[in-house]
Amino acid sequence: MYAHRIRRADLLARVMPADAAARLFAPAMTVGMSGFTRAGDAKALPRALVERARTEPLCLTLITGASLGNDSDGLMANAGVIARRLPFQADAALRRKINSGEVLFIDQHLSETAEQLRSGALPPVDIAVIEAAAIRADGAIVPTMAVGNSASFVQQAKHVIVELNLSAPLALEGLHDIYLPRPRPERAPIQLTSPGERIGTTAIAIDPDRIVAIVVTDSPDSPSNVLPPDAETDAIARHVVTFLEGEVAAGRMGPQLLPLQAGIGTIANAVLHGLSQSPFRGLTMYSEVLQDSAIALLDSGHLAFASASSITLSAPMHEHFIHNIDRYRDRLVLRPQEISNHPEIVRRLGIIGMNTALEFDIYGNVNSTHVGGTHMMNGIGGSGDFARNGELAIFVSKSAAKDGAISSVVPMVAHVDHTEHDVDVLVTEWGLADLRGLAPRERAPLIIERCTHPDFRPALRDYYARALLRGGQTPHVLEEALAWHERYRVIGTMQA
Amino acid sequence: MYAHRIRRADLLARVMPADAAARLFAPAMTVGMSGFTRAGDAKALPRALVERARTEPLCLTLITGASLGNDSDGLMANAGVIARRLPFQADAALRRKINSGEVLFIDQHLSETAEQLRSGALPPVDIAVIEAAAIRADGAIVPTMAVGNSASFVQQAKHVIVELNLSAPLALEGLHDIYLPRPRPERAPIQLTSPGERIGTTAIAIDPDRIVAIVVTDSPDSPSNVLPPDAETDAIARHVVTFLEGEVAAGRMGPQLLPLQAGIGTIANAVLHGLSQSPFRGLTMYSEVLQDSAIALLDSGHLAFASASSITLSAPMHEHFIHNIDRYRDRLVLRPQEISNHPEIVRRLGIIGMNTALEFDIYGNVNSTHVGGTHMMNGIGGSGDFARNGELAIFVSKSAAKDGAISSVVPMVAHVDHTEHDVDVLVTEWGLADLRGLAPRERAPLIIERCTHPDFRPALRDYYARALLRGGQTPHVLEEALAWHERYRVIGTMQA
Repeated sequence: MYAHRIRRADLLARVMPADAAARLFAPAMTVGMSGFTRAGDAKALPRALVERARTEPLCLTLITGASLGNDSDGLMANAGVIARRLPFQADAALRRKINSGEVLFIDQHLSETAEQLRSGALPPVDIAVIEAAAIRADGAIVPTMAVGNSASFVQQAKHVIVELNLSAPLALEGLHDIYLPRPRPERAPIQLTSPGERIGTTAIAIDPDRIVAIVVTDSPDSPSNVLPPDAETDAIARHVVTFLEGEVAAGRMGPQLLPLQAGIGTIANAVLHGLSQSPFRGLTMYSEVLQDSAIALLDSGHLAFASASSITLSAPMHEHFIHNIDRYRDRLVLRPQEISNHPEIVRRLGIIGMNTALEFDIYGNVNSTHVGGTHMMNGIGGSGDFARNGELAIFVSKSAAKDGAISSVVPMVAHVDHTEHDVDVLVTEWGLADLRGLAPRERAPLIIERCTHPDFRPALRDYYARALLRGGQTPHVLEEALAWHERYRVIGTMQA
Repeated sequence: MYAHRIRRADLLARVMPADAAARLFAPAMTVGMSGFTRAGDAKALPRALVERARTEPLCLTLITGASLGNDSDGLMANAGVIARRLPFQADAALRRKINSGEVLFIDQHLSETAEQLRSGALPPVDIAVIEAAAIRADGAIVPTMAVGNSASFVQQAKHVIVELNLSAPLALEGLHDIYLPRPRPERAPIQLTSPGERIGTTAIAIDPDRIVAIVVTDSPDSPSNVLPPDAETDAIARHVVTFLEGEVAAGRMGPQLLPLQAGIGTIANAVLHGLSQSPFRGLTMYSEVLQDSAIALLDSGHLAFASASSITLSAPMHEHFIHNIDRYRDRLVLRPQEISNHPEIVRRLGIIGMNTALEFDIYGNVNSTHVGGTHMMNGIGGSGDFARNGELAIFVSKSAAKDGAISSVVPMVAHVDHTEHDVDVLVTEWGLADLRGLAPRERAPLIIERCTHPDFRPALRDYYARALLRGGQTPHVLEEALAWHERYRVIGTMQA
């Protein structure tokens, strides 16, 4: 009955219920699951593993592409399925387990997990669980809305379980471009010189004997949960568009800009939405994830081509995308995250990276991950891959949070994910600070006056003035540098 | 009289004294000078500019490869020649000017300066000053002991001044491999797949009309000032060699390892010296700078090939190298620093990066640049290029400094140059902590017990135990996190 999706008769016998497939797991195994920013994740096995953990604790090391949907991360964390998790997550329940120390979280650059699996720096994957739209006659697995690390997991895992999702349109076939670098020293240049090129295959090759189970599902990805643009995100978007117009006017890039990357989340989505009011045409994206805004820019004609590792959409946009998929077929490609985020490609193409900061400091260091310097929010994701190696590293944030109790601009960030060496441009709703070619003593006044919420400017000016008295390349009053965070922790506001 | 070094008759007329060439400069110009880790720097023009500044302040923006020799940086800083400096320096007098705010210092990844010049993110170079061993019949400039950013400066500068150094052996000709990436969007893959390949030309091409002056000099590079190995650096080297032997035994790399990079300085030099007592043969280096230890490893046969952007040697090793240069000719290549440090190549080859930390914290963040979090030492150099994109990022440091007053392992570094996401291995004379695949709560005990000086272990254990009570992915007692640095500033010791 699944012959159009399972195109080898010998594999039909491996279809089994999820609970049967879950019995293939053993405690302390390393498991690789498909799924990247709620897209393309396994739907049945996470729940089957939760059931199974009621009788036997599993304590798995779970590696994915990025975050899972369907509350899977939280359910598995609460049930004791997961003891160790990498490289990214965005689940409230799992986050609590991480911050309490019950689940160990390794917060990794998204381009590096595949490399560390290949080299043996991470333990080998015992079982891979891969969502598929189809299994081809040669056994190759056609992914769904994300590629993530699936190709790496399939390449390495002892056993592969396919989740065949009947709700995934067969029209997805052909959208993917699967290419993995070879082990060293046979590693060759990646011959990709523009976002639209294809260098690989349209499905993940595998010896079909390694597919030990096929579990059939029929539920779509969790819808994206980004918020709509608001006055502040609109202002941030305007600052970014004006800045990019200035780059074109100065001759630093052409009117089609350089390939764009935008991180996950509300602000990055809003910035891309802002481009639909821009004069730019023929834009390209070379990103890790596409949100609603990217599809809208393809529709409006601003965007000529989009390359990513995952597509995560709101329910209505998902409906629109699926019904019009043929329109996008020659303007979209989904790649392994090792390739979408690869230093080689990011530097070659000269990506403009736009990512969200939790907070940044007066010298341009960015914290993307740790609330109060200690508690994990989601993880660094791909922001470091793009910020470090791209042409422009733009970080965006609203200037304040928690009804003005928290300033996003602080004397010193309490955790550094992107150093002053890597950050080019900072943007809040108040303005934009272009830090390129500036020394720390030039950056501080610019960041204070352009980006900070007016309520916090006097205190930052005062801090910086007193720091200058102590001298140095990067002046600080060290005993006060983290006092804003400490004040928030103790009295609930950074305001003095 | 210089016909064998200036192989175009029309250029002989442009030979002039340094003071005449110095008159080509105007205040506030942007100047690109050759020179990388005291090697291949211009010898005459810096002093001529110092003389010239007695009558007219120059306030130049000075861009180099890396640090200059001959006290040039300090002399120029003290004379007001330099107002702005990038991307690296290592001069005591310039450092004072930077930390007092009199000279603005932009502390950059060494792979990025050329890219920022190309894109226009940095101001265009008005005058390039390039040390050469010869000017060929086609006008092409043969560099001396370093390439650095010279090819980029020559490509971009309005005017080029050549310092022809008669003390540089003509046998250097052929040692260099000059290749620069093309502007985007014509950027192509860099077709370099092993340290020994050549992809460019042996000299820096230039339209000879752009050479406006040739100044003849005859003094060698400043000798390297690294200290000899001692008991502590020997112990660090042994830990590194033992670790690498373990990687080979575990099958994570072959017996020739992966290409090695070693930063400038005493400890990195000692670690490489340690390899001469190792079982490894057929090693390669793909580094930014070669010190005495690299030449010794070529001599001993441990090292099969070395690629770098600069060679900086002690006086006796320089003598040895120059006299035996034909022995090294087919085992050495000098490249532009954009290529020696390029993310594409560093990731492709899987570099093992070994660099020195000023301090690191219990979670694996590394400070390479800022003493006390505020005062510049030298700069990040290429350490970020290699740590971020290579296969293994190893940071080494003695566990204590200033007669035990300073611990190199602290609760929180006061400036972050390499984030926890990028750091794989930490080493002091006490031991080695392999952080790969570990969560922050696993890293802290390991770093405290393996790497910390015993005098500081109880205090770090106490800090970490109290931090755990506050919870989080990366537990901290925020109001104490920087107290060790503050205590040193106020009472001269981190000891409580």
